Amino acid sequence: MGFEVLLEKIAANKEVIGIMGLGYVGLPLAVAFAGKGVHVLGFEKSEKKVENLINGKNYIADVSGEDLASVIGSGTFTATTDFSRICECDAILICVPTPLDKFKKPDMSYIKSACEEIAKYMKKGTFIALESTTYPTTTENFMLPIIESKAGMKHGKDFWLAYSPERVDPGNKTYKTENTPKVFGAMTEEGKQIGLAIYQKAIQYVYPVSSPRIAEMVKILENTYRLINISMINELALLCGKMDIDIWEVIEAAKTKPYGFHAFYPGPGIGGHCIPLDPFYLEYIAKNYQFDLTMIHTAGHIDMLMPHRMTIKITSALNKHSKSLNGAKVMFLGVAYKPDINDERESPALKIIDEVVKKGAVVFYHDPFIPSVTTESGLELKSSDYRLISEMDVVVVTTKHSSFSGDDIVENSKLVVDLTNITNKKASNIYKL
Amino acid sequence: MGFEVLLEKIAANKEVIGIMGLGYVGLPLAVAFAGKGVHVLGFEKSEKKVENLINGKNYIADVSGEDLASVIGSGTFTATTDFSRICECDAILICVPTPLDKFKKPDMSYIKSACEEIAKYMKKGTFIALESTTYPTTTENFMLPIIESKAGMKHGKDFWLAYSPERVDPGNKTYKTENTPKVFGAMTEEGKQIGLAIYQKAIQYVYPVSSPRIAEMVKILENTYRLINISMINELALLCGKMDIDIWEVIEAAKTKPYGFHAFYPGPGIGGHCIPLDPFYLEYIAKNYQFDLTMIHTAGHIDMLMPHRMTIKITSALNKHSKSLNGAKVMFLGVAYKPDINDERESPALKIIDEVVKKGAVVFYHDPFIPSVTTESGLELKSSDYRLISEMDVVVVTTKHSSFSGDDIVENSKLVVDLTNITNKKASNIYKL
Repeated sequence: MGFEVLLEKIAANKEVIGIMGLGYVGLPLAVAFAGKGVHVLGFEKSEKKVENLINGKNYIADVSGEDLASVIGSGTFTATTDFSRICECDAILICVPTPLDKFKKPDMSYIKSACEEIAKYMKKGTFIALESTTYPTTTENFMLPIIESKAGMKHGKDFWLAYSPERVDPGNKTYKTENTPKVFGAMTEEGKQIGLAIYQKAIQYVYPVSSPRIAEMVKILENTYRLINISMINELALLCGKMDIDIWEVIEAAKTKPYGFHAFYPGPGIGGHCIPLDPFYLEYIAKNYQFDLTMIHTAGHIDMLMPHRMTIKITSALNKHSKSLNGAKVMFLGVAYKPDINDERESPALKIIDEVVKKGAVVFYHDPFIPSVTTESGLELKSSDYRLISEMDVVVVTTKHSSFSGDDIVENSKLVVDLTNITNKKASNIYKL
Repeated sequence: MGFEVLLEKIAANKEVIGIMGLGYVGLPLAVAFAGKGVHVLGFEKSEKKVENLINGKNYIADVSGEDLASVIGSGTFTATTDFSRICECDAILICVPTPLDKFKKPDMSYIKSACEEIAKYMKKGTFIALESTTYPTTTENFMLPIIESKAGMKHGKDFWLAYSPERVDPGNKTYKTENTPKVFGAMTEEGKQIGLAIYQKAIQYVYPVSSPRIAEMVKILENTYRLINISMINELALLCGKMDIDIWEVIEAAKTKPYGFHAFYPGPGIGGHCIPLDPFYLEYIAKNYQFDLTMIHTAGHIDMLMPHRMTIKITSALNKHSKSLNGAKVMFLGVAYKPDINDERESPALKIIDEVVKKGAVVFYHDPFIPSVTTESGLELKSSDYRLISEMDVVVVTTKHSSFSGDDIVENSKLVVDLTNITNKKASNIYKL
């Protein structure tokens, strides 16, 4: 199928969009397209997820269960584990994970596997866009050769490749898939026209850039900005602790500057699936250009040590009350990586838990969003009753869920280590970051 | 004079405010107070400045000559080199320089000297506030002991000490002294009440914090934020150059993210009297707390190397045209540290000039705001005619003054090294940062 034929098909709303990976990026995207009447076929390796979806059952907090049931019911959206059905699709949007391995190196296996599946089954005239965060040049230098060689097809003639980063911010009540501007970079003018025609159906504002590598870099810049600023304020918070300066009061005052300042807040570390990962994709590829990214490296170092430093803070607080960490009962309030979400990926709380357990603490946690967790070291814990805080030697506030009350925590705890400023006051039994 | 007496005097508008240091901070502040009918006595060591002021002559770009002439004419504001007149003042606001020495160590001599002059001459019941940027704890641990011991007076009884950072942004057309919110931290409740009563006469919004060290830290946080973000984007720009990615296009696209991103732009380095200095005050005092500020250190390292890296960029551009830097005619456009101001302090352009001259280049510059400059190495240059660009081997754009035209520069130059994206396009004779 040629370029004009595909454009006409899109204009007539007869195209089928395949979405690979139905997680927190792919599923909202699938529902957004299907909600506009576009036929969407979701590909997912997990049989359980596919079964849920076919039965109209939602598993992503940012997706409305009603919207999902509606597009499943109407048949506009369906999901499958059968990747051979890629041949039915006119466009494939890839939303697979791009994790780091244990040594902080990019794990490209999901993208590679997606490219191989696509190359195996796609028909001629397919548009392909990657949405997963990855290092610049991935689309052009990593994906293109795999697809061309495995499919025996030629880019620009038989298929079109592009990159458009997801900008999902879990829990954001204002900006969802549809109304978050979307950056989009294709390899050719034809690819650009096709991609725009497709994305503009579901996304209110699509911003084209001149190449995939520009779009790849955009996403990394956004999250590198966050990484270095959070790391900077965390480092300053640690210094402020030593200088008897309340960093939280400093930040509130700095915010009165009406230009040129953007407040970031300290915390027990950096969590989630973006900020602790994305910049290190760039650091990785930079080496290939004989280039050290010193800011990212330094930020990563601060971040890596935060859980340990928080353990020291807990130990110091207990020590002032003549208690050792060894044998102490410690309750963590909040294990989600940010407030009011049910996601504990890369959460610093879990890393602190692992370290204090290793040092002999008896650990409990309470999180209204997360009933059970498994830490990196394999420790399995269930969320305890909040009221147990009064029986603890120390209560550590690691996530500022809006249902938590600083006053109540302080009133009912012997000792509070507040890493979130939820207490927002001074008292002899409060130790703040 | 006791606390209540001073407050009453302020309420009756009968107080005299002394301002020490009549530079780009002190003079606008003096004119702001005097403009509200408050009697201001300015102290300045430079006889030439005092003579100018007494004759109603302005020398600071952000001060309106009319406003100055008016307050001098009415006698509300006068200036003197006679520091014994400190005894006439009810309040002293210190606006002296706080430079770094050649080894990037804080030079506290101006603050020390100001404290000594004040201690020598002040009457009992004087309010003293420091406005100069400095490391946290300066007011409490550095100034207080000097004043108490030299004056033989007791803080809280005989005088009150506070800190309130200047937030002057030279060239800012919207935010001036009067309408920029002012953070203010006193050592005692009485000092707070006096300081608020005074500052609120000239400043629309005064934001009190609980101590001088909080206020000291606020100013450093604001400029550290800028330092690390500019350094980060400069480092990414260098990498992007190697990866064939236009960093400027990346930034414009990242700006479409409607939350959580603040754009900073790369350039030839960091200049001015705040960003290259303030964070290093904090780095200095941190050592005293056995603390390394790794983010500031890394940013400082990037910044330190930028002029050298820009020299390499110029060399590479010339090399592609088979020219060596040695013997090349090089014109720098803009030596001010930011657009549309007449200030070249810490300007990276001057550092690049020094380096390329050392390597044998024949250097010219043109800057409509700065008729002549002296570089760090002592080289004296006068601004050349802009039209000389056509005779140069390379034209380096170092400041994006709004009177410069990217198109005109490209049209009339053999080769352009554009460190500001003023050209905003690709061409065979343009090398961008």
